[in-house]
Amino acid sequence: MKVLRDVEQVNDVVSQWKNNGEKIGFVPTMGYLHEGHMRLLEEARKENDRVILSIFINPLQFSQGEDLETYPRDEARDQKIAEENGVDMVFLPTKEMMYPRPLSVQMSVTKRTDVLCGRSRHGHFDGVVTVLSKLFNLTRPDTAYFGMKDAQQVAVVDALIKDYNIPVKLVPVPTVREDDGLAKSSRNVRLSKKERKEAPSIQAALQYGKQLVRDGHTSPEVVIKATEKFLETKTHGKIDYIELLSYPELEFLEEIDRPVILAAAVSYEHARLIDNVVFNKEGNEIYG
Amino acid sequence: MKVLRDVEQVNDVVSQWKNNGEKIGFVPTMGYLHEGHMRLLEEARKENDRVILSIFINPLQFSQGEDLETYPRDEARDQKIAEENGVDMVFLPTKEMMYPRPLSVQMSVTKRTDVLCGRSRHGHFDGVVTVLSKLFNLTRPDTAYFGMKDAQQVAVVDALIKDYNIPVKLVPVPTVREDDGLAKSSRNVRLSKKERKEAPSIQAALQYGKQLVRDGHTSPEVVIKATEKFLETKTHGKIDYIELLSYPELEFLEEIDRPVILAAAVSYEHARLIDNVVFNKEGNEIYG
Repeated sequence: MKVLRDVEQVNDVVSQWKNNGEKIGFVPTMGYLHEGHMRLLEEARKENDRVILSIFINPLQFSQGEDLETYPRDEARDQKIAEENGVDMVFLPTKEMMYPRPLSVQMSVTKRTDVLCGRSRHGHFDGVVTVLSKLFNLTRPDTAYFGMKDAQQVAVVDALIKDYNIPVKLVPVPTVREDDGLAKSSRNVRLSKKERKEAPSIQAALQYGKQLVRDGHTSPEVVIKATEKFLETKTHGKIDYIELLSYPELEFLEEIDRPVILAAAVSYEHARLIDNVVFNKEGNEIYG
Repeated sequence: MKVLRDVEQVNDVVSQWKNNGEKIGFVPTMGYLHEGHMRLLEEARKENDRVILSIFINPLQFSQGEDLETYPRDEARDQKIAEENGVDMVFLPTKEMMYPRPLSVQMSVTKRTDVLCGRSRHGHFDGVVTVLSKLFNLTRPDTAYFGMKDAQQVAVVDALIKDYNIPVKLVPVPTVREDDGLAKSSRNVRLSKKERKEAPSIQAALQYGKQLVRDGHTSPEVVIKATEKFLETKTHGKIDYIELLSYPELEFLEEIDRPVILAAAVSYEHARLIDNVVFNKEGNEIYG
């Protein structure tokens, strides 16, 4: 496994692989790898000859006041996990290598962002598309893998790729869950025993909402209200939002007549959890 | 020669060429080809196995009030010229193919733009980097060719490529000139006989300014004033600007201690002409 920090070296290796006609799968991360990432690597491994994992804590996607400085890091452990999961190249650039000078050309996301978590994270997705544009150009993958846990990010990357004709296939990978349905997250360890017991109700509520659509309900408002009511009875966590939007456009709807996302964010004492379910107008899950 | 209008077809042909290990040179244009474009194609031909010419009148780079509707078009003639100049693929997309829906991700140029002609062309370079990002992704060239006549555009493309690690080599191609030094331009035909006689003095004045630097002058102000004075005595055209800036950063300088551009714009009755000279601090021309 190659561990590279230099963009020129990455370019050389990628060029060699491409000259050999090898297919490249790419998994961009901010490190501190967990089971969700391993799932992405597994998918990448299946469908490609080579797998590139990038680990870069991108300062551009942290808003003021967010936890850039305290974001968890463990390079040694990450490299071990990468090796064990069949990664061919870990790309570990420095901040100075990615942003040697202030950008002259800025990217900003003007759709799909002022909903869900994006509403409270100004500039976050601008930073995401900027770093991904750079990483796609550096690693020139055939396919890139993103977890549906952050479904809004998947929607934004989808827009980026389509808007700019980027020759990369986006593969959304289903969220990895505990046996009781709770979406895996490094934040789950911050839950109290009681909170941990209640937290699976987030996914349960979303599934309940989805079932209403299967049963023939087509009003977003009805589904949202029912989901909220279900969730309120099952957990003491504070419901930050329950939203139902078209997917991947993330627009408000009058009627559920196309694929949608039903998403929730719940704040517990030391952890804010998010989860979602994406389904078509018949209530059949997509990326589930 | 292939004439393609469909992005999928372009992708197929480009993939085939790349799989064969063929080098691709790319010349993006808005059509109505002239000698300047032929010079670009000639360079592309020399250094590559395949040459792609794109012809697309990009609505995004026209400001309100600019001549989008009346911009000259002659597809048949352009294709003939392309064929004669060894082009392998002409890419002629429609507006609907390039912009099937409003962009969700916007690009904007925040440096190198509020000087020279950019000062009066708001949003122009935003449109340029947007369409070039798309075209680079569609044609995946090894090398792209741009004329130094529009030196500001070359500087902006340089920034785009560096900022986003685009795997394309930018080749700035020297301006094609008449025997008397006048930069070739489709607008030259709009000059009166007297104006045409005077117009070579634009390049002569810029060369005079450059010579001052060769002679040891290091003050931008002194060089600009002397160039202006020289030009005033040689033509009745209205001098819109004479500017001296660092190149390719296009920043104001206290002292000529690095590569610079000395550029002028002159308005005649029915044509506004621009020209420039780029040279290092010793006064030796670059891209000349």
